[in-house]
Amino acid sequence: MNQSTAYQKVASHEAQKGTFDRCLLLYSGGLDTSVMLKWIQDEYGCEVVALTVNLGQRADNMEAIREKALKLGAKDCIVYDARAEFAELCMEAVKANADYQGGYALGCPLGRVMISQIAVKIAAEYGCEVIAHGCTGKGNDQVRFEGYITTLNPQVKIIAPVREWAMGRDEEIEYALKHGIPVEQTQKAPYSYDENMWANTGEGGEIEDPRLIPPLENILKWCNTPKNAPDEEELVVLEFEEGKPVALNYQTLPPAEIIQALNAIGGKNAVGYFHLIEDRIVGLKVRGVYENPAAHLLIQAHKNLEQLVSTREENELKTFLDTKWAYLCYGAKYFEPVMDNIRAFQDKQNEKVSGKVTLRLYKGNCEVVALDSPYSLFDEHLATFNKSADFNQNASAGFIELWNLPQKTAHQVKRGKLAGVSAP
Amino acid sequence: MNQSTAYQKVASHEAQKGTFDRCLLLYSGGLDTSVMLKWIQDEYGCEVVALTVNLGQRADNMEAIREKALKLGAKDCIVYDARAEFAELCMEAVKANADYQGGYALGCPLGRVMISQIAVKIAAEYGCEVIAHGCTGKGNDQVRFEGYITTLNPQVKIIAPVREWAMGRDEEIEYALKHGIPVEQTQKAPYSYDENMWANTGEGGEIEDPRLIPPLENILKWCNTPKNAPDEEELVVLEFEEGKPVALNYQTLPPAEIIQALNAIGGKNAVGYFHLIEDRIVGLKVRGVYENPAAHLLIQAHKNLEQLVSTREENELKTFLDTKWAYLCYGAKYFEPVMDNIRAFQDKQNEKVSGKVTLRLYKGNCEVVALDSPYSLFDEHLATFNKSADFNQNASAGFIELWNLPQKTAHQVKRGKLAGVSAP
Amino acid sequence: MNQSTAYQKVASHEAQKGTFDRCLLLYSGGLDTSVMLKWIQDEYGCEVVALTVNLGQRADNMEAIREKALKLGAKDCIVYDARAEFAELCMEAVKANADYQGGYALGCPLGRVMISQIAVKIAAEYGCEVIAHGCTGKGNDQVRFEGYITTLNPQVKIIAPVREWAMGRDEEIEYALKHGIPVEQTQKAPYSYDENMWANTGEGGEIEDPRLIPPLENILKWCNTPKNAPDEEELVVLEFEEGKPVALNYQTLPPAEIIQALNAIGGKNAVGYFHLIEDRIVGLKVRGVYENPAAHLLIQAHKNLEQLVSTREENELKTFLDTKWAYLCYGAKYFEPVMDNIRAFQDKQNEKVSGKVTLRLYKGNCEVVALDSPYSLFDEHLATFNKSADFNQNASAGFIELWNLPQKTAHQVKRGKLAGVSAP
Amino acid sequence: MNQSTAYQKVASHEAQKGTFDRCLLLYSGGLDTSVMLKWIQDEYGCEVVALTVNLGQRADNMEAIREKALKLGAKDCIVYDARAEFAELCMEAVKANADYQGGYALGCPLGRVMISQIAVKIAAEYGCEVIAHGCTGKGNDQVRFEGYITTLNPQVKIIAPVREWAMGRDEEIEYALKHGIPVEQTQKAPYSYDENMWANTGEGGEIEDPRLIPPLENILKWCNTPKNAPDEEELVVLEFEEGKPVALNYQTLPPAEIIQALNAIGGKNAVGYFHLIEDRIVGLKVRGVYENPAAHLLIQAHKNLEQLVSTREENELKTFLDTKWAYLCYGAKYFEPVMDNIRAFQDKQNEKVSGKVTLRLYKGNCEVVALDSPYSLFDEHLATFNKSADFNQNASAGFIELWNLPQKTAHQVKRGKLAGVSAP
Repeated sequence: MNQSTAYQKVASHEAQKGTFDRCLLLYSGGLDTSVMLKWIQDEYGCEVVALTVNLGQRADNMEAIREKALKLGAKDCIVYDARAEFAELCMEAVKANADYQGGYALGCPLGRVMISQIAVKIAAEYGCEVIAHGCTGKGNDQVRFEGYITTLNPQVKIIAPVREWAMGRDEEIEYALKHGIPVEQTQKAPYSYDENMWANTGEGGEIEDPRLIPPLENILKWCNTPKNAPDEEELVVLEFEEGKPVALNYQTLPPAEIIQALNAIGGKNAVGYFHLIEDRIVGLKVRGVYENPAAHLLIQAHKNLEQLVSTREENELKTFLDTKWAYLCYGAKYFEPVMDNIRAFQDKQNEKVSGKVTLRLYKGNCEVVALDSPYSLFDEHLATFNKSADFNQNASAGFIELWNLPQKTAHQVKRGKLAGVSAP
Repeated sequence: MNQSTAYQKVASHEAQKGTFDRCLLLYSGGLDTSVMLKWIQDEYGCEVVALTVNLGQRADNMEAIREKALKLGAKDCIVYDARAEFAELCMEAVKANADYQGGYALGCPLGRVMISQIAVKIAAEYGCEVIAHGCTGKGNDQVRFEGYITTLNPQVKIIAPVREWAMGRDEEIEYALKHGIPVEQTQKAPYSYDENMWANTGEGGEIEDPRLIPPLENILKWCNTPKNAPDEEELVVLEFEEGKPVALNYQTLPPAEIIQALNAIGGKNAVGYFHLIEDRIVGLKVRGVYENPAAHLLIQAHKNLEQLVSTREENELKTFLDTKWAYLCYGAKYFEPVMDNIRAFQDKQNEKVSGKVTLRLYKGNCEVVALDSPYSLFDEHLATFNKSADFNQNASAGFIELWNLPQKTAHQVKRGKLAGVSAP
Repeated sequence: MNQSTAYQKVASHEAQKGTFDRCLLLYSGGLDTSVMLKWIQDEYGCEVVALTVNLGQRADNMEAIREKALKLGAKDCIVYDARAEFAELCMEAVKANADYQGGYALGCPLGRVMISQIAVKIAAEYGCEVIAHGCTGKGNDQVRFEGYITTLNPQVKIIAPVREWAMGRDEEIEYALKHGIPVEQTQKAPYSYDENMWANTGEGGEIEDPRLIPPLENILKWCNTPKNAPDEEELVVLEFEEGKPVALNYQTLPPAEIIQALNAIGGKNAVGYFHLIEDRIVGLKVRGVYENPAAHLLIQAHKNLEQLVSTREENELKTFLDTKWAYLCYGAKYFEPVMDNIRAFQDKQNEKVSGKVTLRLYKGNCEVVALDSPYSLFDEHLATFNKSADFNQNASAGFIELWNLPQKTAHQVKRGKLAGVSAP
Repeated sequence: MNQSTAYQKVASHEAQKGTFDRCLLLYSGGLDTSVMLKWIQDEYGCEVVALTVNLGQRADNMEAIREKALKLGAKDCIVYDARAEFAELCMEAVKANADYQGGYALGCPLGRVMISQIAVKIAAEYGCEVIAHGCTGKGNDQVRFEGYITTLNPQVKIIAPVREWAMGRDEEIEYALKHGIPVEQTQKAPYSYDENMWANTGEGGEIEDPRLIPPLENILKWCNTPKNAPDEEELVVLEFEEGKPVALNYQTLPPAEIIQALNAIGGKNAVGYFHLIEDRIVGLKVRGVYENPAAHLLIQAHKNLEQLVSTREENELKTFLDTKWAYLCYGAKYFEPVMDNIRAFQDKQNEKVSGKVTLRLYKGNCEVVALDSPYSLFDEHLATFNKSADFNQNASAGFIELWNLPQKTAHQVKRGKLAGVSAP
């Protein structure tokens, strides 16, 4: 007997056959979750309600997804428009300068937070005792969905069919054909994507192996490559209030619209895609490709503005807490109480992050070229080299003496000792 | 009587008139230090030995500087070639992923470390009791020079003529003309630069005020702007051993040559310049322009390779210690004992940072496109989605249950309380 | 000319003779500030208003202080009762588990915050352009007073007579006798104290040199030594709400009364005194003796309760931010914006720090022996070893496998490499 | 079917029946592991080799344990004397000022590191493919043993009978009686202990529930209570070299002997026991009682000495890294590569932690009363208040001005804004 072949349910949050009547399935309309929709009905003898959450993913036709679900026997299919809510959640990522391990603005982890919240709510409304998701047994998303759902409602149980059913791609297609589930005739794409308005995440194929150069021109869905981007600079002006973007190019807009517009602008100018070898929660390393143009523009702008209005002490400590926030958010700990504390810190610092930021985009480059804020700590009188300035240079030598005293004393003591001299 | 007009010496490390016979002047050959060379002789009635340290600055003609110093009455002028030593020091910055507040690889602060070490050595050799520097009373460099020099040798005293002499630019020129000091006929450049092989730092004029878009095409000395850069991609392959670059494009080279070659390659491709509003040690904010193409390429490559061979725990904690290193290095605390401890941490982690990194440069873009290392923690068997892989997905649900337990319990307790129910 | 003999005013916040008419003196009634009261009038030719702030120091007779000030020519003497306000400020220290370098609850630094706030307010009310303090030129308190006062009102200038007047103790006494200032006939005490309700701080004599055993029986003013303390255990029950103590031994009391009562109880039982070698702001090390029984009892109780209601993630991160808070509070940075951010973090975490804590005191020992909270994360069903408990031990092995995966992989890679085998 | 009843093996490191011939059992001689010795033979049809590691636990009679194992059918029983090795490991805890959540010096976690290392070595020598441990499925120790053993040798598989066998205490006793396993006639003790020379850890009964006052007089095994301790002070002098204790009361001794002697001295004087509600790895909270007198004395002495020879920057950062070390060591991450990096930091700082420390013990109190070191940063010339001292108080005002500048500027900007005035 080998542990890894037959799946065994060991977690107390895993739903057992025969213990429930209705399951809510997180449904995308793709092959996996379509097969699942049927499989759960058959395998568990229960009704399935499908839930599709609109987080602004561009690839999906929500009405077609709904029809497909109903055709496959779903008791109901809810298409939930969470775009405005999700955009608000993304504003938290702006304040936290969201960056996991080098440019990833955490689109997928944040999407899982939102979907979990909605799923728990819909499950209660539709009398579903169980929620099923389409994640594999090797990734981050199973940790996020199961963790968040059972945190938000510990009564809800979980089914994770991909862990359970032991079908490979070929078996899945066979199952689909056998049960009249439409299979797209196109060849399997080499890459798989997860999309919402904050990020498009690609994995699979050459993306995964860090030794191979990823063919970005084939992989990117939202962004031009720098080579293909227009040969003209584009200026973008963003206005922030208390850490949140409120206007784009002098037009006041709600967050969702700012994000969508910036995805278009950034994508066109080849700005905001990354590929990086990330550390998954479950201890693996894998390379992914992330397209998050709006996130990148907003965070670059925000970070620079925040730095302008914050002191050196604030800037250093915020870096640490932002990193912590990113590792926890990625790590399926969005609802950890410590996150509330970190958010309180970040919100406080962001109270003064108001002002205008000008960005210049050009063929993959994104530069913050100008900044203005009523809370700016740049003081032209203090900073310029002009002789008549207010800065009291008489104070400098005294400052230097005491600023340096510990370093100097430490070296004196060290030398005294090393020279065999008795220390002071 | 107003404190800010007449300079008063209050620090115990400031040299008093009549207490010494010979002064070592950190001499650049420019107007300020040339005026100083004369002024110190007159004002302090002492001999002046000039010291010019070659850190790879490209703008300077070392022989001409030497001749100028001697012509202005210097007892001697030492031109010290520190290029190889300084390149070694820069390797520490690579291991520390040097980045102060957004892209500044700390070229100027590191240069001050090296110059201070050399100045203390030369001062002893040439019998100079005092060292004079050309820094103003408002910047970081006075803190670094005076701190480092007195740390390395507390017997040495300091003169900082710019703090003391109360001359503006016009008075300086007048003084120069009166004393036969050559004044370049060109108009005063709007920007001032500090240059060594690790960075060219520009300040002054529109650079300083964050509200103005800096005219980079006039400011940059080492780098093309993205618009002017060639319209061809360029691949660069770097090889690292224990955190240090050892070969460029398959050619083994010493650090100084790698740095110089990468400055050329990066500069050509418009990679590695930054402008940012930085927090000075003395509490001011000011924007600077930094050109550090070699540093940027090396650090990007190093950071990605380090991330590949390090665990998630290592990657998170290193971010914090690297930030700390950068703030201390910038903050004139290079010789703080805590830096030795941080270095020991960084060196340990870097023991495994060996391998090859491929970078793609194009019109301002610098992407790490491929990585390989004998210590890579990417495991293709574990990471791929293939059904036959070794990863034990049976373990996932149990992991999720316990990984999530604290978060879930905290929410249960919170809900219990809020609902007025007695907590468990 | 030697820099250290004649005092020179170099800071722009130092008041110059002849530029003001009225000075507010922070007046304690002791020899130093009494001499100062007279000296400022003579030296600066200005009126002096004395301010004595009652922070609960037990040694002082406020009415006698007032009379002495008026007798010495003070235009007025304000005795400001800040006990309730200061006790509120101390509640912040409880939430922050205030501890600088091993047991010092920051009584003196917090006292300086309060006095500075009051001084700025009183100076405005009484038309004083200048504030004088009695601190030496070597300690922390000059940094705190001058920093805080000029932060709260940059118009106010400062006089620091002790830095300026170059009198030693003998000259001071001579000056006092000459000007009819009462000098207590007792011998100079070997120790000097700073007292408020949160701490009594002693320094001087054998206290300072870490090589000498401090004779605590002569030094302590508030606390018995363990040997002299009663030979009976005493139980204390504290109740907290949102991080603040609200009741002592089941009696609801305002903060100031809780503090005063606990000082008596703790002091009697020899609890809450410390001697430690602390790092001063100005870079010196010195040993001090701190008596802060109430602070110690409250913080011990709070810390244990906080730990009970917080997750592991919260407990680890709070330790870091509390240390930061303590270093900044000690370091004259109480009004740094970063402190507002840290406070927001601490306040958020403290929202759930409610419950009852039982402490047992005995001859220097202070043990938290029992804790109860509606937000307790201790779950007896989960924690006990009972076979029927809810904890799902089936989940453990899966958890262990993935929790351990990065560590295990790292070692496999390391071994592979070291054995000369090509890495995975 | 309920997940929590029948145990299912899901981890790939769990040994399956019939796949191995010989098992190494971590054997303590107690009821659990004695029953296990028999049960494994019966259940798995394999030979069992018993291993007992002597880490200095005082309660155990090693020869009796060996005989018992052989009597119960063990193929062999190895008693491994690891006292000197383990004492060396404890020296690392001294350098790290080991303290998990308030006084716990991590005796049990460190013991698990040592036992795992030895078990892997012995398993290889004795041809055991599998290692069995006696830990429950709810605690930390299963995570440590299984993590460490499979990290050190991924070929080794694990059996955790307590997770598997589903016997309660009564069934265990029944099983024992049935199989001729001696059961001590005494009533079940209410507490269970884990002991090694670094700590005696007690849990169970009233210890676990934080709401109950633990009856220490019944629980403590190594320590007197303060009430019962002698009414005489005792001075202890420790000498350290590079962070490690080398002599006790002027007698040079190896680590194991220093530890044993200090356990006796500390225990007699009621010093070094703690009870605290700790966060377990698996997300539970539970209270434990820890007796670690030697650890407490050594760490108190070390911490104070380290603070004396380290700068303020070092002292602040070390606190953070020591906390990190403790959380990782507790958290079954002793072999995480990040621990090597942290150790390198700690070792570097400890190079100067040499000198003599005098402690005074009395009825539960442990005070560091005197310290001396050739690397002491206490400078009596700088620190004393004497007028003639070297400290340059002229430098203070200039220092204060610039030290305070960011705080002051931030408040000016804030006020400008709040008052509706345009900011500078």
